[in-house]
Amino acid sequence: MKNVNDKSTDVVQLAHGGGGRMMHQLISEVFASIFDASGLDCSNDAALLPGQQSRIVFTTDSYVVDPLFFPGGDIGCLAVYGTVNDLAMRGARPAYMSVGFIVEEGFPINDLKRIAESMRASAQHAGISIVTGDTKVVDRGHGHGLFINTAGIGFVDHDLVIGVENVQPDDAIVLSGDIGRHGLAVMACRQELALETSIESDCASLAEPILKLIDARIDIHCLRDLTRGGLASALVEISESCRAEIVLNQAGIKVLPQVAAACEILGLDPLYVANEGRFVLFLPAEQVNLALEVIDRSCADSKPVVAGRVSAVGNPRVILRNEYGTERVIDMLSGDQLPRIC
Amino acid sequence: MKNVNDKSTDVVQLAHGGGGRMMHQLISEVFASIFDASGLDCSNDAALLPGQQSRIVFTTDSYVVDPLFFPGGDIGCLAVYGTVNDLAMRGARPAYMSVGFIVEEGFPINDLKRIAESMRASAQHAGISIVTGDTKVVDRGHGHGLFINTAGIGFVDHDLVIGVENVQPDDAIVLSGDIGRHGLAVMACRQELALETSIESDCASLAEPILKLIDARIDIHCLRDLTRGGLASALVEISESCRAEIVLNQAGIKVLPQVAAACEILGLDPLYVANEGRFVLFLPAEQVNLALEVIDRSCADSKPVVAGRVSAVGNPRVILRNEYGTERVIDMLSGDQLPRIC
Repeated sequence: MKNVNDKSTDVVQLAHGGGGRMMHQLISEVFASIFDASGLDCSNDAALLPGQQSRIVFTTDSYVVDPLFFPGGDIGCLAVYGTVNDLAMRGARPAYMSVGFIVEEGFPINDLKRIAESMRASAQHAGISIVTGDTKVVDRGHGHGLFINTAGIGFVDHDLVIGVENVQPDDAIVLSGDIGRHGLAVMACRQELALETSIESDCASLAEPILKLIDARIDIHCLRDLTRGGLASALVEISESCRAEIVLNQAGIKVLPQVAAACEILGLDPLYVANEGRFVLFLPAEQVNLALEVIDRSCADSKPVVAGRVSAVGNPRVILRNEYGTERVIDMLSGDQLPRIC
Repeated sequence: MKNVNDKSTDVVQLAHGGGGRMMHQLISEVFASIFDASGLDCSNDAALLPGQQSRIVFTTDSYVVDPLFFPGGDIGCLAVYGTVNDLAMRGARPAYMSVGFIVEEGFPINDLKRIAESMRASAQHAGISIVTGDTKVVDRGHGHGLFINTAGIGFVDHDLVIGVENVQPDDAIVLSGDIGRHGLAVMACRQELALETSIESDCASLAEPILKLIDARIDIHCLRDLTRGGLASALVEISESCRAEIVLNQAGIKVLPQVAAACEILGLDPLYVANEGRFVLFLPAEQVNLALEVIDRSCADSKPVVAGRVSAVGNPRVILRNEYGTERVIDMLSGDQLPRIC
């Protein structure tokens, strides 16, 4: 299918970073094929390491969000919560994290302090310790103010194995709250747009609700936070990994009126917009009410809903059913509708 | 001392990334003071995590080397060996690593593949598994081709506590080989210089010699690899951390003739030039011969030497004594003589 003479496929494009189809292609063609032998786990955001008494979960992410400060957060809390959430999505208790700063020459030291302080406060709030770090400076014009990389270690103290491989037919899918806030909050304050809205990022730690779900003995099959590519990409990714058919109910998917309005203006579909404090939970249908209760108690700013279910296994696709019963198939975006939102 | 009206101190400068005095100031003023409460360990390159059956060592580094390919290596093997070596310096067996790519739009995918392949081969050689990763793409003009961040996890299966806090008076200091190759190899192939030399980077895994030293029951007090800032900065840093007076013998410090010649031309002091496959070892004097033998057997391309000793504790300084008995005090560079060599 791929035309080898097509120059555009020979270099990395912005869309390769968008969490959509092109990113998955890049990962599978470049990294998965080369790193396969060393045991890289490409279908989950964090690796579960074998052979330890309490199992270790290990994850990494880089943050290149533009701008660095946005309503509801900044690159610092984004980096901490992003790492905490990747650990939580494997059912791990976040324990330790590293932070690597790549700073561009000329970056204001006061901004660096403000971001470090935001990281300290977020780490304290999420119960993770920043234990090791690194700083590199690149010459002016060869960076973009600040990039941050974090890696995190968490411990799994229970017997649940949470991962895409455990999705079951008839699983209910709970969505932890309204969607689309983070992507819109970042987009709205970009210089070229400067949209006047009151949208704040949903950036938050998801460790508490997840650990409480585990304490409540919810038989969690799979968890995924809805970052780059939004709810749609997360579900398509899961569906493709475990060959599940997923049916979503449009009525169950909440979007704040100001988010919906901004999406209208910008021509965006909130299903594909990034979140930084929302997750989907795959679980046995009979445990749904208890799970909703637990999430409701531990997530202050959002209301969990049953968003859909796994209707079958063996026919990987995601279907959105609206209130009139009309269905459409949801695909991953090829590229990226919102570059550099995390 | 600091003039608050001096604008140059209010922004990050290239010299803040050089491993010298300015970098230490930035770390202590910005990061150490803010992250202190969360347990950040600023005096070692990797954190030792408490409370596990086999102790865990955790480290991170970002790589911004320019150019990405240089004689003797590339950013990929540099990133793998850098992480492996930070783990080894705490006496840990390297086990798992993460890799985060920050790619600039337009970067050739073939180069990305070549670098990923180099990482795979280096990881296999060093016995570490790449288990988790992340890719971000930044728009053209806001990166510099490719930055890589890695984090690593290693396990300590012995009772030695290796760290700057264990340096003892009368410790011998063994240097694992000749110095200055990596920095010169990178500098020599920069476009603006294009110095014609045969210098290859010393970029290599140090896990094997360190693990063999531990197997041989060498009572290792402190280890440090000689990266940014070179031998001089590493020793000044150790001396200041543990308040030790260190005396170095110039005669024991080997520099290849082509490295010495290139240093002449560029006006550099090899004591401050970065290495990526060399370390210093602090140990009881009576174990020196055994240590030299072990290192000699496991480092193919270098010859270990006794480079100096800890002459006292309580008077932190590093003295270089030449063959005529003349002494000079070695300080950390303020900034950086070679930006972006790792």
